[in-house]
Amino acid sequence: MTQYEQAIKGEITSEMIKAAIYEKCDPELIRKRIANGTAVLPKNKKHDIKMHRVVGKGFFTKVNINIGTSQGYMNIEEELKKLKISEKYGADSIMDLSTWGNLKEIRRRIIQNSNIMVGTVPVYDAASKAFQNNKKVIDFEVNDFMQMVKDHAEEGVDFMTIHAGITKTTIEKLKRTNRIAKIVSRGGSIIAGWMLKNSKENPFYEHFDEVLKICKEYDVTISLGDGLRPGSLHDATDDLQIDELLRLGELVDKCRNYGVQVMVEGPGHVPLDEIETNMIIQKKLCKNAPFYVLGPIVTDIAPGYDHITSAIGGALAASKGADFLCAVTPAEHLRLPTIEDIKEGLIATKIAAHSADIVKNKKVMEFDNQMSIARSKFDWERQFEYALDPDKAKEFYNERKAEDKKMCSMCGPLCAMKITEDYLNEGNVEKLLIE
Amino acid sequence: MTQYEQAIKGEITSEMIKAAIYEKCDPELIRKRIANGTAVLPKNKKHDIKMHRVVGKGFFTKVNINIGTSQGYMNIEEELKKLKISEKYGADSIMDLSTWGNLKEIRRRIIQNSNIMVGTVPVYDAASKAFQNNKKVIDFEVNDFMQMVKDHAEEGVDFMTIHAGITKTTIEKLKRTNRIAKIVSRGGSIIAGWMLKNSKENPFYEHFDEVLKICKEYDVTISLGDGLRPGSLHDATDDLQIDELLRLGELVDKCRNYGVQVMVEGPGHVPLDEIETNMIIQKKLCKNAPFYVLGPIVTDIAPGYDHITSAIGGALAASKGADFLCAVTPAEHLRLPTIEDIKEGLIATKIAAHSADIVKNKKVMEFDNQMSIARSKFDWERQFEYALDPDKAKEFYNERKAEDKKMCSMCGPLCAMKITEDYLNEGNVEKLLIE
Repeated sequence: MTQYEQAIKGEITSEMIKAAIYEKCDPELIRKRIANGTAVLPKNKKHDIKMHRVVGKGFFTKVNINIGTSQGYMNIEEELKKLKISEKYGADSIMDLSTWGNLKEIRRRIIQNSNIMVGTVPVYDAASKAFQNNKKVIDFEVNDFMQMVKDHAEEGVDFMTIHAGITKTTIEKLKRTNRIAKIVSRGGSIIAGWMLKNSKENPFYEHFDEVLKICKEYDVTISLGDGLRPGSLHDATDDLQIDELLRLGELVDKCRNYGVQVMVEGPGHVPLDEIETNMIIQKKLCKNAPFYVLGPIVTDIAPGYDHITSAIGGALAASKGADFLCAVTPAEHLRLPTIEDIKEGLIATKIAAHSADIVKNKKVMEFDNQMSIARSKFDWERQFEYALDPDKAKEFYNERKAEDKKMCSMCGPLCAMKITEDYLNEGNVEKLLIE
Repeated sequence: MTQYEQAIKGEITSEMIKAAIYEKCDPELIRKRIANGTAVLPKNKKHDIKMHRVVGKGFFTKVNINIGTSQGYMNIEEELKKLKISEKYGADSIMDLSTWGNLKEIRRRIIQNSNIMVGTVPVYDAASKAFQNNKKVIDFEVNDFMQMVKDHAEEGVDFMTIHAGITKTTIEKLKRTNRIAKIVSRGGSIIAGWMLKNSKENPFYEHFDEVLKICKEYDVTISLGDGLRPGSLHDATDDLQIDELLRLGELVDKCRNYGVQVMVEGPGHVPLDEIETNMIIQKKLCKNAPFYVLGPIVTDIAPGYDHITSAIGGALAASKGADFLCAVTPAEHLRLPTIEDIKEGLIATKIAAHSADIVKNKKVMEFDNQMSIARSKFDWERQFEYALDPDKAKEFYNERKAEDKKMCSMCGPLCAMKITEDYLNEGNVEKLLIE
């Protein structure tokens, strides 16, 4: 049985208990939310995972980071380093989005080495195999794809993105759209290309039951991919996006009826003032299924800094209901990320998640309070300890020290905390107030 | 006459015309908003400025970056490089917050070399002079401070921060506060320290008319400093902050009655869900005077990344009404920023300002649209041109190129835009829809 089926039967699993320890909550709350579909606990029965995480309403906002090879950049060791740095800086999951090399072997190494949840997009595998065999990326059969889903499930993948929301009606709308960037989802474009080339309906929509069957067997959580997510601010919240979302909402029901855990993927590129609307409409149409967003980035003009554009959108999205943030690295739109990019993208996203968690649950602010107490006591070691990135904080501090080691070189002897400490003692206050 | 007085008389000045060219608006709109106090045009009569900028309601969100020396780090050439990189990446103003060395000479060089507005905090100058003469930072007389204001005005400073909002009632509240970080504003702490040491009321509050007289003569815009701004999420929107804000609101009236341009400074450290409230209450209590915020940063736990915590808060703040964002660098809370820190902090803040301007005025999104059009056409040169930081975008792209130069190495042959372009042609669509 899947976590979902057990939750419905009222059973609290060992995975739920482990996830509850991390959340510092009653395991029964986790069971209840998994049972009503507002949370998922992605864990493949075959994956010996160490960190159990629940994704959904009322729990910490989770953070995923994408790693993986691409043509010309196939180095398993580099990808494993990306995995390890992701774990070190608090990623809750990684997605192996490799599209080049021996994907099965890369995946095996990543799953074997990962202490956190692993996600994949099986259609990339089908497309990459075709391309690496000198065919077009859309030259694969439905069976090839189903085999990939099965392989990934058997290998221990915890959640998979399935792009089943693009259908003939989507293509009809795509024909008339005034979008600037028609499709920016790799999976979405492969499916659309496949449909157009073969003059056939979306095979993953038509054969969704087969996908469900495999996912149920291994308890793979389905992440419904948004193949039509806006890839430019101009295209945000348009009819194409909402049309697909309606279909994703139907598929949520299908997953639940089948006993499979499900979450839904979302944008993308969205102006700041449309983010809340996007969160509300997704939760409404998708029956409160956990929402997993990529970004959203809030301006298109900052390539090289898209970890920042995405941290802005992600913080707001999560504070308004998104449950799972996919990190965007500074390299987005420009090149395959390096190990350093992965770290920078991840930390920016952790900042977004934590800032939003403070809104979701004020108790989370205790970390901030501890940091501020350490600051007001000039306790630098404690400040480093509470920092999201202790190494960088320490490095910055040490690079330019103040003469008086109590302070930092930003203000030196004009340190506001030091001056306040020096003069705000009871005697002084009394004297001032009497005058 | 000041810009404000001329605006009230119905006169459109040459400065307003120049500012209108940048805003692409009718100069009459600028005149009207300066006249009703919702905008300011900081320009000292003695400063031969090249970039004229209006700060306030309905105009582009402006960005300031702080530069300046501190004890042990006194290098004028480095500060001038910071100025030049700030101008290059689109800062609207710089504040010289130097606290070490020959401050008059540093200021002279900066004003002389600056094409953009220059702001200062005269009380730093008084405090630094005392300290550099082996006295305490609060060992100065009211006359010393007034002389500094006069000197700065004569030298051409366009706007000055004056901490006149802390009074005896503040100290009374400070005595009972449960704040973690009592005072984090340097100016605020110096004033409070001075008051406590001398058992006297805030001299800048008591002698505010003298400040007004000097500022009027040179048309220096007063930036009412928030000495009690929260310096920890825990302390945000508390009675101390709002008490001071009430006083700043009174001082706004005083400035306007005297014919002096005025804006108000704001937080600080603020949880995401209190930012909108902060914008509304400031605009209400300060009679819609332009709001100049430092950050706000939305979590305390990310030293080394406070340009990101601040970009999140700044974007939301500006989208809800803040007019002027003070950049925060990655070095905040750790050390005096380097040239590279200045650049990173500035670009993060430019991202915040632009993301918010899209909300304030949809026309601004044309930049984003042009970038997205260039992306969908694989026109890399145009993408670099529209990037906030063309150099970094180009560098990233070139570091790991794709085999097919049309694409980038992120997706390689699985480029969604390329696949969509390949298959979404009329014939294919017709064929699919007929099937």
